[in-house]
Amino acid sequence: MKKWVIAVALLAVAVGAGAGAWAQMKPEDAIKYRQSAMFLVGQNFGPLAAMAQGKIPYDKEAAIKHAEIVAFVAKLPLRGFQPGTDVGGETKAKPEIWENMDDFKAKLEKMQQETAKIAEVAQTGDFNALKAQVGETGKACKACHDKYRNK
Amino acid sequence: MKKWVIAVALLAVAVGAGAGAWAQMKPEDAIKYRQSAMFLVGQNFGPLAAMAQGKIPYDKEAAIKHAEIVAFVAKLPLRGFQPGTDVGGETKAKPEIWENMDDFKAKLEKMQQETAKIAEVAQTGDFNALKAQVGETGKACKACHDKYRNK
Repeated sequence: MKKWVIAVALLAVAVGAGAGAWAQMKPEDAIKYRQSAMFLVGQNFGPLAAMAQGKIPYDKEAAIKHAEIVAFVAKLPLRGFQPGTDVGGETKAKPEIWENMDDFKAKLEKMQQETAKIAEVAQTGDFNALKAQVGETGKACKACHDKYRNK
Repeated sequence: MKKWVIAVALLAVAVGAGAGAWAQMKPEDAIKYRQSAMFLVGQNFGPLAAMAQGKIPYDKEAAIKHAEIVAFVAKLPLRGFQPGTDVGGETKAKPEIWENMDDFKAKLEKMQQETAKIAEVAQTGDFNALKAQVGETGKACKACHDKYRNK
């Protein structure tokens, strides 16, 4: 029985390590990887949210740059949520992530879709559309944080 | 005299805060920003270097993904080297960066050019060209680290 479990586990690793798969990271690096990506997303989403809320002036060029970074870097955190990294470093990630990986991935993908739209909308220079899309993106961030991130 | 210095400083801030400029960050956030970006670059350059050195098998699709991330994220650290952030958090950045900002920027730009080339070369699937470009990129990283980063 145990041998069978190990065989399946090894197969899963082999498939996961196939063409185009990510190189595995040390758990502490994986945790730092996702945190680094999330931090960069936050520091670029922040100014967009501040513009949307009228806290800083709307600046089309700056909005485009921030939105492009948000859209690109939003694609990176998933790699850092590799199996076994609910432990291995300081993390706010709840163990539920790995128990509900399909739901977690769906929420991450929703966020990636919304950030991709922010980059498109920023290009148009339509401030009201940007405001609306900042709202949609913020909801997608919050949905995942509420369920899968410790306070 | 002091008023004149302040006026010039304010003008510089105003110009720097003009169209398309980055929103200023708190010093600790700026430091974390550049470190996060550098960490993501390193974690994606690492597998490319490992492939180049034959430590892991060459995988064209993985190489493309890592190289695209390296090329994009390499554009991010500069924002984190905003004035006054030689202090304000744990950092290996030497104060010489802000004394020689033009040289530092030139070295960062050289690195950005080399990482952009890695993304191009990875697409071709030419392993020997990738190996050579990993070498060139590594040199560009090292040139800046040797001069501007504490061990």
